[in-house]
Amino acid sequence: MALTLGFIVEKLGGTLLGSAQMSVAAIAPLESASCVDISFLSNPLYVDQLDTTRAGCIIVAEAHRQRASARGACIVCDKPYHYFALLTQLWREQNPVSSESEPLIHPTAFVHPRASVHSSARIGPQCVVEEGAVIGEGTWLKSSVNIGHHCILGSECIVHPGVVIGGDGFGFAPHRGEWVKIEQLGGVRIGNRVEIGSNTCIDRGALGDTVIGDGVKLDNCIQIGHNVQIGEHTAMAAFVGVSGSTKIGAHCTVAGGAGFVGHIEIADRVNIGAKAVITRSIREPGEYGGYYPFDSDSVWKKNAAILRQLTSIREKVKNLMQNGSGEKK
Amino acid sequence: MALTLGFIVEKLGGTLLGSAQMSVAAIAPLESASCVDISFLSNPLYVDQLDTTRAGCIIVAEAHRQRASARGACIVCDKPYHYFALLTQLWREQNPVSSESEPLIHPTAFVHPRASVHSSARIGPQCVVEEGAVIGEGTWLKSSVNIGHHCILGSECIVHPGVVIGGDGFGFAPHRGEWVKIEQLGGVRIGNRVEIGSNTCIDRGALGDTVIGDGVKLDNCIQIGHNVQIGEHTAMAAFVGVSGSTKIGAHCTVAGGAGFVGHIEIADRVNIGAKAVITRSIREPGEYGGYYPFDSDSVWKKNAAILRQLTSIREKVKNLMQNGSGEKK
Amino acid sequence: MALTLGFIVEKLGGTLLGSAQMSVAAIAPLESASCVDISFLSNPLYVDQLDTTRAGCIIVAEAHRQRASARGACIVCDKPYHYFALLTQLWREQNPVSSESEPLIHPTAFVHPRASVHSSARIGPQCVVEEGAVIGEGTWLKSSVNIGHHCILGSECIVHPGVVIGGDGFGFAPHRGEWVKIEQLGGVRIGNRVEIGSNTCIDRGALGDTVIGDGVKLDNCIQIGHNVQIGEHTAMAAFVGVSGSTKIGAHCTVAGGAGFVGHIEIADRVNIGAKAVITRSIREPGEYGGYYPFDSDSVWKKNAAILRQLTSIREKVKNLMQNGSGEKK
Repeated sequence: MALTLGFIVEKLGGTLLGSAQMSVAAIAPLESASCVDISFLSNPLYVDQLDTTRAGCIIVAEAHRQRASARGACIVCDKPYHYFALLTQLWREQNPVSSESEPLIHPTAFVHPRASVHSSARIGPQCVVEEGAVIGEGTWLKSSVNIGHHCILGSECIVHPGVVIGGDGFGFAPHRGEWVKIEQLGGVRIGNRVEIGSNTCIDRGALGDTVIGDGVKLDNCIQIGHNVQIGEHTAMAAFVGVSGSTKIGAHCTVAGGAGFVGHIEIADRVNIGAKAVITRSIREPGEYGGYYPFDSDSVWKKNAAILRQLTSIREKVKNLMQNGSGEKK
Repeated sequence: MALTLGFIVEKLGGTLLGSAQMSVAAIAPLESASCVDISFLSNPLYVDQLDTTRAGCIIVAEAHRQRASARGACIVCDKPYHYFALLTQLWREQNPVSSESEPLIHPTAFVHPRASVHSSARIGPQCVVEEGAVIGEGTWLKSSVNIGHHCILGSECIVHPGVVIGGDGFGFAPHRGEWVKIEQLGGVRIGNRVEIGSNTCIDRGALGDTVIGDGVKLDNCIQIGHNVQIGEHTAMAAFVGVSGSTKIGAHCTVAGGAGFVGHIEIADRVNIGAKAVITRSIREPGEYGGYYPFDSDSVWKKNAAILRQLTSIREKVKNLMQNGSGEKK
Repeated sequence: MALTLGFIVEKLGGTLLGSAQMSVAAIAPLESASCVDISFLSNPLYVDQLDTTRAGCIIVAEAHRQRASARGACIVCDKPYHYFALLTQLWREQNPVSSESEPLIHPTAFVHPRASVHSSARIGPQCVVEEGAVIGEGTWLKSSVNIGHHCILGSECIVHPGVVIGGDGFGFAPHRGEWVKIEQLGGVRIGNRVEIGSNTCIDRGALGDTVIGDGVKLDNCIQIGHNVQIGEHTAMAAFVGVSGSTKIGAHCTVAGGAGFVGHIEIADRVNIGAKAVITRSIREPGEYGGYYPFDSDSVWKKNAAILRQLTSIREKVKNLMQNGSGEKK
């Protein structure tokens, strides 16, 4: 369904330069937009695309008003990327997928009679909500989502297919060469406006609860161990693993595949790079990371073999500096 | 169910040296085969196993005809490993598991009334096919597979349990310390003869579609981000992660646990090694990789500590070369 | 539900110093326990917490009897951590979640008529048990668990939500630029008292079976390839990947994110560190590992760049030692 530019600025604000009656059929990136699409310029590096794009209307910041309006319709606003995000929400609202207008609890879902599901929450096909679980206002479990007993989700959360909340944490006591199960007696508490990607797992606590703060965004295939705490508005990309009892601050970002050992603390506003192995607490905000740099096979394998000789190379350099010979004397 | 050697060569070709009436009860590797099994020799490194195996019949290339036939029945063909693959398919065809003869849409599956499922497609137990999704001819969703709204699968695809296609891509605009959702308005388009392993996730596009080419093979627990494109006949092992908008060529292979950052391009016929972190585009076909080599704890930890001193070691060597002292002068 | 100390020692043994009538309402760690909680001291490093904890009763070893009893009730036993594990089991037994008292096969589960489920096994909501599968005595499939055809689980196993057992192994023969499927004709055999975490996948064998030994404990999001064998009482943390036909010994531990290439063998009693890439067989028990150490971005990126020059640095040191110049002569 197309929207008119007039309707868009009426809903989202901004200054329209162009015809309010003009309608746009879709949102598209600058490089692939056609004349019936609306696009946006958020990164000034791409400003030259203003000259080549065929977009019917472009969302721009004040700085690009003149260049954008010289070529056609535009909407001028403070933060084009944020405006774009709001526009996608408006678009979805005006073009709902049908599942959004179906019964709130799907007939194929299983909701335990002693679970508490808010009257505005949506439980999709094949979901499972076990005894004592609480699903808050407007929260949406997409499909095949599993919420274990006594786990609590706040309001306006989105949980994608295959997510498991409240599986047992991984806890065993070694005893005579075997593993004795430590029953996981805690739960999971998830705040408001949390989004959880497909097939992500959040384990229940061993004694206390695993806690996910308000506004946290988790990508797909993430593993959160028992008794982990994640601060508000922290975002994590796919395949991040957080081991038991680790506490991650608020407003952090964690790139794909990074892992945290257990029982450490990460300060607020820490940014972790891809595939980093975080083995100790981080007290200062900032950027951290570390991964083995890739190369062509012939190059990296030669260098990697020398990694095993670093102790010896350092020793030789030390000796060369002390006695000129490279040998210990 | 046993098959006769005559039936096998009638169906798959090759030259039988031995009795057409002889029957074999199973396919087995050379080292564990018994006299009622059929086996194959594909890697010439293992040619000496011809003397020790107890297999009733062996599939071999022309080069090993004599040695194989001297010890018993054999089938001579061009490519024994390919012949073996076809034989496994014949075996399955002759020994179907019952689910293959049951109703095509399982009674516990949920298929939205406005989804389009080809009359020959098979939708297994507990699957979910949302509104507007398209499932092509002969495609098989095994069990607990989730296909999101408006996602399209071609013909003759196999999708294993727990797969999620069309979960939302991970897109948020930062705004005043919080994350504003970018609704994911695109879909997923999957070609023909694609196989997707258990619990793998393929996210829908933000604006345009995520696209998987014909003949692509994805192992288990893979994560494909929004707007990724994967070229025809590329194969990826478990735990590979591809970040948003990255474009991977055709006929590539990616080993387990490798990851790609977003917005890069990988050429056709690129082979990526295990756990490599691909941080920039690759323009040339070939072999690429890089991971930290493992060792006993006592060795690798010592060397890893020196990794942090590489800048200083390089400096000292440079000074030694310039002034013989190792110190800057 | 609270338990009395008398009831606890009656069930689990140990020597109670304090009132048998005293009741405790929950189990809690020393640092957060209140006066109605029972806690435990297993690591002597934390012995000073005996002076500060407010726990109503503490489980301690003989060595700490005096110090513990001086401050209040305590239970003295041989191994406090093992005692704690047994206490969590007693607690769960006395405080069952309702799903534990519901029909053994949930009405939303699909169990194939030719599957064999022991009369004491529990099959939770939305589970799938395919034809010919065998579920042993007392084994519990939590919810949305998928057991493929002819896969066998022993007794007293616990399988968490989203687990897939018996998806096809990843096997294809290359042929003229395409991949020809190798039908996976084997199964999966899982021993007794095995626990499998949420969304973990265990593939069926290509010809023979994939085999998981008695007492193995697998965390969430693990991937076990076709024809892998895992020895008894081995434990693996989240995101571990084991490639096809690799054989792992008994009593091993594998930390999170470690990966094994295919067709190798790992001895008994091997401990593998986080994110290690195990590329060859390990014959000796012991500790092994290796990952790139993380650091602040400004530090690790500088050092990582030099990784690519290690060959040249080693050459220069060699030349300095031989001829004092750093250049080859």
